[in-house]
This record gives sequence, C-alpha cells and structure tokens, in this order.
Amino acid sequence: MLDSRINVGIVGGTGYTGIELLRLLAMHPQVHLSVITSRTEAGRAVSDLFPSLRGHLDLVFTTPDAGLLNQCDLVFYATPNGVAMESVVSLLENNVRVIDLAADFRLKSQGQWEQWYGQTHACPEVLEHAVYGLPEVNRGLINTAQLVANPGCYPTAVQLGLLPLLEKKLIQTDGIIADCKSGVSGAGRKASIGSAYAEVSESFNAYSVMGHRHLPEIKQGLAAVAGTEVGLTFVPHLTPMIRGIHATVYATVKTSVDFQALYESRYSDEPFVDVMPSGSQPDTRNVKGSNVCRIAIHRPQGGNTLVILSVIDNLIKGAAGQAVQNLNIMFGLDETMGLKHIALVP
Amino acid sequence: MLDSRINVGIVGGTGYTGIELLRLLAMHPQVHLSVITSRTEAGRAVSDLFPSLRGHLDLVFTTPDAGLLNQCDLVFYATPNGVAMESVVSLLENNVRVIDLAADFRLKSQGQWEQWYGQTHACPEVLEHAVYGLPEVNRGLINTAQLVANPGCYPTAVQLGLLPLLEKKLIQTDGIIADCKSGVSGAGRKASIGSAYAEVSESFNAYSVMGHRHLPEIKQGLAAVAGTEVGLTFVPHLTPMIRGIHATVYATVKTSVDFQALYESRYSDEPFVDVMPSGSQPDTRNVKGSNVCRIAIHRPQGGNTLVILSVIDNLIKGAAGQAVQNLNIMFGLDETMGLKHIALVP
Amino acid sequence: MLDSRINVGIVGGTGYTGIELLRLLAMHPQVHLSVITSRTEAGRAVSDLFPSLRGHLDLVFTTPDAGLLNQCDLVFYATPNGVAMESVVSLLENNVRVIDLAADFRLKSQGQWEQWYGQTHACPEVLEHAVYGLPEVNRGLINTAQLVANPGCYPTAVQLGLLPLLEKKLIQTDGIIADCKSGVSGAGRKASIGSAYAEVSESFNAYSVMGHRHLPEIKQGLAAVAGTEVGLTFVPHLTPMIRGIHATVYATVKTSVDFQALYESRYSDEPFVDVMPSGSQPDTRNVKGSNVCRIAIHRPQGGNTLVILSVIDNLIKGAAGQAVQNLNIMFGLDETMGLKHIALVP
Amino acid sequence: MLDSRINVGIVGGTGYTGIELLRLLAMHPQVHLSVITSRTEAGRAVSDLFPSLRGHLDLVFTTPDAGLLNQCDLVFYATPNGVAMESVVSLLENNVRVIDLAADFRLKSQGQWEQWYGQTHACPEVLEHAVYGLPEVNRGLINTAQLVANPGCYPTAVQLGLLPLLEKKLIQTDGIIADCKSGVSGAGRKASIGSAYAEVSESFNAYSVMGHRHLPEIKQGLAAVAGTEVGLTFVPHLTPMIRGIHATVYATVKTSVDFQALYESRYSDEPFVDVMPSGSQPDTRNVKGSNVCRIAIHRPQGGNTLVILSVIDNLIKGAAGQAVQNLNIMFGLDETMGLKHIALVP
Repeated sequence: MLDSRINVGIVGGTGYTGIELLRLLAMHPQVHLSVITSRTEAGRAVSDLFPSLRGHLDLVFTTPDAGLLNQCDLVFYATPNGVAMESVVSLLENNVRVIDLAADFRLKSQGQWEQWYGQTHACPEVLEHAVYGLPEVNRGLINTAQLVANPGCYPTAVQLGLLPLLEKKLIQTDGIIADCKSGVSGAGRKASIGSAYAEVSESFNAYSVMGHRHLPEIKQGLAAVAGTEVGLTFVPHLTPMIRGIHATVYATVKTSVDFQALYESRYSDEPFVDVMPSGSQPDTRNVKGSNVCRIAIHRPQGGNTLVILSVIDNLIKGAAGQAVQNLNIMFGLDETMGLKHIALVP
Repeated sequence: MLDSRINVGIVGGTGYTGIELLRLLAMHPQVHLSVITSRTEAGRAVSDLFPSLRGHLDLVFTTPDAGLLNQCDLVFYATPNGVAMESVVSLLENNVRVIDLAADFRLKSQGQWEQWYGQTHACPEVLEHAVYGLPEVNRGLINTAQLVANPGCYPTAVQLGLLPLLEKKLIQTDGIIADCKSGVSGAGRKASIGSAYAEVSESFNAYSVMGHRHLPEIKQGLAAVAGTEVGLTFVPHLTPMIRGIHATVYATVKTSVDFQALYESRYSDEPFVDVMPSGSQPDTRNVKGSNVCRIAIHRPQGGNTLVILSVIDNLIKGAAGQAVQNLNIMFGLDETMGLKHIALVP
Repeated sequence: MLDSRINVGIVGGTGYTGIELLRLLAMHPQVHLSVITSRTEAGRAVSDLFPSLRGHLDLVFTTPDAGLLNQCDLVFYATPNGVAMESVVSLLENNVRVIDLAADFRLKSQGQWEQWYGQTHACPEVLEHAVYGLPEVNRGLINTAQLVANPGCYPTAVQLGLLPLLEKKLIQTDGIIADCKSGVSGAGRKASIGSAYAEVSESFNAYSVMGHRHLPEIKQGLAAVAGTEVGLTFVPHLTPMIRGIHATVYATVKTSVDFQALYESRYSDEPFVDVMPSGSQPDTRNVKGSNVCRIAIHRPQGGNTLVILSVIDNLIKGAAGQAVQNLNIMFGLDETMGLKHIALVP
Repeated sequence: MLDSRINVGIVGGTGYTGIELLRLLAMHPQVHLSVITSRTEAGRAVSDLFPSLRGHLDLVFTTPDAGLLNQCDLVFYATPNGVAMESVVSLLENNVRVIDLAADFRLKSQGQWEQWYGQTHACPEVLEHAVYGLPEVNRGLINTAQLVANPGCYPTAVQLGLLPLLEKKLIQTDGIIADCKSGVSGAGRKASIGSAYAEVSESFNAYSVMGHRHLPEIKQGLAAVAGTEVGLTFVPHLTPMIRGIHATVYATVKTSVDFQALYESRYSDEPFVDVMPSGSQPDTRNVKGSNVCRIAIHRPQGGNTLVILSVIDNLIKGAAGQAVQNLNIMFGLDETMGLKHIALVP
C-alpha cells in the first residue's frame, strides 16, 4: 500500500528550530519524515541527541545525500544562514519543494543581503522566486511556491503587529519603533559564554542596537504592505527566559479609527492570530508551545501614540510552527493540521 | 446523531492541575467536557481565566450543580484536599465514575488520613472501595473502578523508581531514602509570599523535613508491593523551576542482579515509563509537557548502595496526565489516547 | 561616651525596600539603627523575618511609637503609598528629618497626586517643602531638606537617561518613548498570584500600558529640567528576574552634538552614574547589588532617533541605596559612604 | 610612605571564582592587588572583561611573569585544575605564600589524585606540605602554612555538615549519603552547550553519579576527623540557579544526644558557620553573596536517620570567600576582615 503522506526531509536539525520542527513533524498526521542530515551527528540516533524524542521518532542522522533528499516531496533547511543557498538549486531542479528556516532567501535585494550577512550570495537568481512565508500576507503565493523563505522570529511578531495599520495607511510611516524582547533560545543551540545560564539569568540587556539583521527584513515586509518605505528603529533585547518574543511597537496615529475593531476584523479569519480583548496585555507564556500570535492595541491617554503588543513563541510561530503552517498551505492540507497544540501553562 | 464521546465534568479546575487537565482534555479525541464548576469563578469563561485556552475551549465556570454532574460519565475532582469527600458519595450512587486528583482517597487507613490531613474524613466507608490509580501497579483494578484516587506527584516518581526492586525483594526494606526535588507549581496556584518569584527564584531549600503528607502514601504503596512495611526517609525540596520532579532514591542491595536488565524488563510494556540507557542521568526538562516517567539506575563504585533517578512532570504524570491515563483505562480506550504529547524542549 | 553616629529609625521595613535598607544600614559605618516599627511583625526579631540578617542586626520590630521616633535624627518610611503622609508632620515638627521611600511626596501637584493614587492627600501643605531626592539634579536642595521624597525606580532610570539631552535642549520634547523593563521585586513583597513564580517565570509582559503612577513623576522631573512640558509614552514591562530595571528610551534629535561626549561630561563628577564606552550595551546584572546607574547612548544608522539605555538595581539606586545616598548628603557625609558595594556577578 | 597592606597577585582570574575573588579583594581594606595574570586576556583591562568592576579596580591582565609574582606576599591561583602545580614550586622557594583555589593540592595521596584528575602530578613532593584550607578544622595549620589548598565547594558544605557528628563518633561511618545540589556557576565560566541557559533553566538533573572528583576529597576530610575510613555515597545535582549549594546529608545514629545543642556548641565560636534554630530549613538565597554556611539538623519521626541541611554560596564560602578567610588567618588579620557582606536578598 502506498503511503499517501508527504515525504519530508530535513537538512540540519541539531539546533533549537530543528528539535522543534522534529517535535511538530513527529506528531503531524500527514507527514512522513524520511531523512535528516547532519555532518556532525551522522550515525547518531536523533533520540540520543534529543532524549525528549525517545519513543516518538526512530530516525538516525545521516550525512547529506542528494539522492535521498531528491526523493522527498519537501525539504526543510534548519541550518545556519548561508548553508541552504549552497545546495537548494539542485533540489529545486528536481522539483523538490523547499522551506528554508534560515535567512538565505528572505531579502529580495542581493546587495542588501550581502551587506547584512557579510558574504556573497551563492544563488542570487533564486531570490526573486522565493516566497516570503508569512501566511497572513502571502498565503496565495505560498500555496504554489516551490521555495519558501520562512520569516525570522522578530519580523513575524513585528509585522503581524503592524499590518492592519499599514494596510489602511492609518499611521505615519516614519518614526516607527519596535522595542523587542526575546528569550534566549533565539540565539540558537551553541556553546558560547554569552548564552551561559550564569551570564543570562537574572539579567536583561539590549543588543545589536546599531543594527540587527532582522531590520532590513522587517522594513522590506512593512514597505510591501505600506506601499512605501518605512522609517523604523528596531532594538532587540535579551530576556532571561527560554522561549518567547514580546514586541512592543510604537507608531504615530495619522488617521483615527476604532483600532480594536480594525484588528479584530483584519484577523477574524486567521487561525493563528488572536486579537486580545480591549485593554489586555498578552504575556509570552500563554503562547509558549503554541503557534499563536496574540496581539493587543492600546492608545495611552488618548494621545497620538499607538502601542501594539505582539507575542509569539519564537521557536513555533517564529520558526518551526510557521514552517509547518507553510507546509500545510503548500500541500493543500488544513492549515492548522498538526498545529493545534495548546500553550503549556504554567 | 449521538455523541459517542465520554461525557466529562470537572469540579474545581482553577488551579494548576486544573488548567493542565483542561489542556489535555481539550485535545482528547474521545472526551466531551460538558461542565466545570467553581464557586469563586462561576460565570466566568474558562478562557478568560486561562488565556492559553482561548480558541480551544468554549466553556464557562458554573456553580456546583448535582444535576449536571450526575449526567456525566466521569467527574474529575481538581479541588483542594478535603473537598471531594464531601460530595463524591452522591455521584457514586448515581453511577458516575470519579477520579479524585486530591488526596481524599489515597490512604486506606482512616486514622492515618485524619492524622496527616488534620481533619475528620467525611466518608471513611468509601476508602476501601477507592482504587489507587497508579496504572503500572493497579491497571487491572482501575479498569473497573468506580472511584480512582489519583496518586500524588512525589509518590508517583518514588514508587515507579522502586517497584522493580521491591517486587523482587532485592533491597533491604529499611533505610530507604527518597531525596526529592520539585518545581514550584507543585505548591499549587495560590497567593502566598512563599511562592513568590522573588522568594523562590535563585534559591533552593528543603521543606517538611519532619514529615510530609506524601510520606504515608509512599510507604503504603511500597509496602503493598514489598509485602512488608518499609523504612523510608523522605525529604522534599523546592527547586526554582515551574514543572518537574526529580526523585533521587537510595537503597541498599540485598541480592545482586543485573539491575539495568531488571528495570528494562519490568517496564518493557509500559507506555509511560522509559528506562534510560545504562549510565544515563535523566533531566526533568525532557519530560516537561509529557506523561512520561524516565528512570535510570546506578550502583556507584560497585558498592551496596543503589541510586535510582526518576523524573516526571509533576502536573502530568504526577497529576492530570495520570488522571487521563486512568480515564482511558476505565473506559477501555487506548491507554495513550490524548497523551502522546512530546516534551517541550528547550 | 557619646555615639556620634546618626540615630536612625525605620517605619515599615518588612518589604523588599525594607530589607535592602536594613542590609545597607547594617553595614553603614556612621548609622546607628535604633528602632524599626511594624504593626504586623511587632515583637519579632528582624533576623527571624529576614534570616540573611542573622548575626548582622540585633533589632526587634516594635509597634509605632512617636516617642522613640522623635528621638531619631532621621526616619525612613519604607511603607506602602499613603502611610507616611499620616504621621510625618509630627516628626517634622520635632525636627526629625525624613526620607519617604514611597510616593507620598513625589508629586508637587496635590490634584495630580490624588488622581493617580486614588486618595485624598493627608498633608498637602507639606508637598511644596518636600525635596525630590534625585541627587544628580537636586543635590543642593537635598543637603538642607527636612523631608526628602525618594524617587521611584522607573523615574530614576528614565530621568538619568534623559537629563543631559533635556538640559541642553537637544531633543524634541514631544514623542519621547520610555520602554521600561523591571524585575519582579519591583512589585513588592506580597502574597499575590500575579507575583507567583509559576506565573512570572519564563514569561514577559507589558502592564499598566494605559497609565502607570510613575508617568506623572517622570513627566514632572523631565519638565523641570527641560523648562517645558514633555510628551512621554511610558510602557513598563515585567521581566522574569528578581532585581533590575532596564530603560530603553527613544527621543528625536533636534540639534546634533557629540552625544557620547555630552554624557561623559555631564556625569563625570557623579559617583553613581557610569557612562559606558561608545557602542556599549549595559546589562542589569552588572549593577545588581550596587548603587550604580549605567548608561549608554546610541544613534542607530545615524538617523534622527536616539536610543538611550539606562540600567539600575531597582532596590538600590531605585530605592534603598538612593535613600542612603540622600542620608549621606543630608548629614554632610561622603556621598558614597556605605554604598561602595560592587555588583554581585554572576 | 610604605604600603603596609598585603601585596597580592592572582594567577588566572577570568573565571567565576576569579571575578568573585576580585570583588572581595577590591573591597578588602588590607589587601593591595598588584598583579593579575592571564595569557588569553593579557593587555585587557579587568573592568573591560568584568564591567561590574568599573570604578573599583584599575588593573590590567598581564602575561604571567615570575618576577612580579615573586614580589607578592601572597599569590592566589584561580586557574583550572593542573595549572598551579606547574609553577607553584618556584613561588614557594621565593617565600611567596600561595592559596590554590583549584584541586591540585587537596588530596594527600598522589595516586588518588592522579586517578581522579587523569594526569601526572607535577610536584607530588609538595602534597604533604600543603594545608587543607578548611578553617573550621585546620585553623592552626593554616596560620603558618606556606601553601593552602582551598577546599572544593561540595566538600565545604558536606564536611561542615558532618563534622560535629564524626568528631564525637555519634553516627555510623558507613552508609552516609550526601545528596548535593549546586547552582550552575559551579561548572565555571565557559562556553559549553551543557551550561547554556536554554539547556539548564527549568530543568534539574543528577550528574557524575558514578563518581565525582569531590568524592575522594570529602572522604579524606571525613576520615581525618572520624579517625577511620567512611563509606559515602555522593550524588551531585545541577539546579537552575546561578549560585548556591545545598547539601542534604543522611547518616545513621549510633549514639543519641541532643544534636541541636551539639551543633550549636561546636560552632559557637565560628564566625562563618550559623546553626539555625531547631526545626529550620535554610535556603541558599539567605547565604547568596555572603561567606556564611548555614546548617540545620533534623531527626524525622524520631527515627535513626539524621538529616543535615547545609547551605553555602559556592563562589564564596565554597571558593573565593574561604580563600580570603584563609588569607586573613595566614596574615594574622581579623578572620572576618573584608568578609562581612550580608547576603543579597531578595
């Protein structure tokens, strides 16, 4: 009997987006995960590296093998920036669809990409064909895309927070501020003093204030919906928690409307965007482990400054969950399939 | 068309075992949750108290109503100790099956119960009929039980850690030590300075060293499998994390066998007990969010002291998950139904 | 022999600012702490409530007694808002100097105070005589003040971050944004579900977005140095750590100067303000346990938005330490006496 | 004018015991820190590596230079195991006194040392001359020692917990169990995935169950006071907090006495051992930042098992603070000089 499930491969997968992707795919009813490659862990059982998967996933890391990957319906790249672009072309030529969870295909401008990522792009000709995988904006294009660039975590939270306002041209497009706070898993699974418990716990700090790689990605996305360039100051901060992003976005009102109603209307059909009741202040723990983005909008003291609060789990809606959402769209499945997990509270 | 699902009610449910039970039941394919009662929250939407459930559970807390509860197939009590015993008899008389997540029916001895819980038992005649809901020991009795006493969190971890040794009479039954560490959610969802973040974080302490209520429960369970009284010192500790119990159990070898093989054999058919490879040291995060108990057994320096490490998520295998496991057994469902969630790592 | 030390009393002192004040005063060479009052803890040894003080402080809480307090040179109020105003007048009439660590005397406008604190002020005639105890602004007035209103934690971090710019009129006074993050101890030592470890840990959220009591205090302070009203949006956030405030302040450049040099010059003689090297991003842990405010100023992409990062320990420079600093100034001591503690890292 | 202070050098000092030693020495009134060496950080300001020291310490890391170190009165080695033994002999020959915070000179038996540390000892002839720097046992020898082996963190907590019992021969010397829990800083300041926040936070696990290097050190110390070999099972655990060790020690009563009175009497003159009131359960936060060891002793249910709870700050009484205490003893200073810091609570 033929297996009607989607045959999926993963390149990389030893990091935090990798383990989250493995967790979600292992519970997905229409996915058959057939291959996962890792040069460093080749030969090791996935559940040996990640004991949480014991009993749920019987798979061994293998060295990258074009043959096996070419047999997949879809390949996820859960690799560092700059890896996918080295091998994705041959997959595309073999009609394998690809979702890159890294940044290789997020920017449309080769020049900008090379400036922010500090290297030459290996396949700039592919950039224009990649679809930016934010379903709430690009669902129609994702549907038929062969290559999806899965959005960054900060860009997801900030864009979902601002879309309704920019689409309706209700705010000034200059002077937007995105003060963002991320849990430590956002820095990835790596040996570094800066990520050590004794360095990070009981502390809080801003980083990359002078310029973070997600800045051009956010600006590109906002400009696309605004129809014009936007002026944005983006300051990321490191927060002593494992998961979660909280974006606090400030914008200046140009045209006043019922903003609460606007947000509720804009996202009424979105399965993974939850507009909170007026006056609410979402916390990251209520999305921890789920694919949901929760948003609230405030206008303090009735002034001209809007404050939008947008929270996601950086590893799910900000990475692996959004990637699975894109898979569902690409293969005509129910968009929420395998993604109905409720946040783990407390 | 008739709803073939099990009609379930919850009494209480505003605490941490409550929200965890709600989370699990909301995703359980064969459960219809029809009523949840709370005097303090009556009239309030469950998802208003617990925003993580927004979009997953459309239910309102109601004042306790015998009529509605009597229509249920099963009622969970997720109440403080001493509440279930006040109203459970009438449910049982109406052939409603009951799982109490509190301690009212865990001890067989009325005298011991009243001594440790400091109150008169309201229905001591029920004690002998209640089945102690540790599936790995009592599966056969749970199957047909009308009243299941869901085990405590510490007792689950410690008993699963010691069962293979006591069943085979391989250790001395005196001088057993259970040094246990629990996350803060074990203390429940309540306003108290002792549970405050600024008191608990970045600290570690023992508590109830002179006697904790789980001591007689553990001793009762161990004696049942050992066929004799056991001498046990049980010291619980508070650990700065939300979820998780780590039991480090020390026992003296009487008869030497291949202990690793013994554990693997004893638990080979258990869906929720995972014996780790020899030399392993399980951590609580790899069971966080799952119903699994992971166990490792060591014999340092080949001496006479065995060290058993046993970890669970206190709110799942130590409370709500085990309760759902018992429901599955009681209603003839696949024991793992609705409980296959993979631990949330990192 | 006469004790030449300053005779100090504390009213309240069972909260977190209280224990921090006790810690600092117990190590202060020129302070004799003679009385501490608490209605709820009267008769209890201070070191019984706060075991960290065992061996360092031999004092018992007593019921408030005007006679004993009137013999003090200085009385600290470490009480909830609204308590000091009930009894401070008689102390002042007896020539006892007072530092209130709560908010009773921080606002000059009685109307504004009553609006934000929701009660009638008990001694509005005192408001104009109280000196706002931010040494970096009011050192000259604190020197001779009989009543010092010790600043709030957020106002300390935000004002120190903005002073150099407003004094020189280099930024627009409208559209200032203060996105602030606080550790949990800022909410005080109290029994509340909202402060519980299992609620706060591994989460991040904004609160009081529509208006926080520190907003009028900050605006009053900024207006005083700017010479005009300022437009400010202030959004506080709760961060899963015990101590620390991180203020990220955004302002629009009006006149461009060498901002790094400006800050270094402005604070060159300040013992407790440390301007970090250009490009730095201070973290809260490097001020944890110390009275220092560390500041960095950035101008991302050379645009018109300045980003000022300002960190303090909310319980020290944001409360008890600043109060001791004010004591030192009021009594002509070296301003750093008893305050040279180095941050506890890691 | 001559500087009468003790001229001190540090070899190493870039780890957590290093920064803690720097913090304590910078506030010590009788110490002049003249040189600190580090090959990796040579040329860098200490306060650049450790911003918490900005304004408190004006010193630059230098490459190791025998000449400078030979001019010191005392040199601390805050280096990894195996470093001090390579260069300490020449210092000793130059009459420089030495305190090694690592393990090179803690074990008397060369064979045992080489077995547990996996390398050949570079100067085994020095082992017998080194004094084990636990003041509560060896104060008289430390006084005149030229080389002090500063105890490990676990050994300090466990030995102080057991000394009164073993000295009086009141417990069985076999079957002792030390279940110990340590904060993450105990693993040192290093880049490793195992120390990463996202791996360690919200988790708890045992490690080195089959044998930890502190086992022979503890057994050597206990045997010395007991006058006979002791049987000890030592299981260390990793706890999600930065600082703190909690030892829970179990021993079997041989001769019954008033154990509370015994402990109070034994430690009545010890400045840094605090026996808690009967029934207490010390927590690690109340010693965080202080040099104090707090101990409580329990006898649950009046049985034969004693439970001793012993807590320290692993970086202070378990490392740098004890080293400064030893310095004070060696140079005839008040033993508490520079060590009266009160724990930082909350």
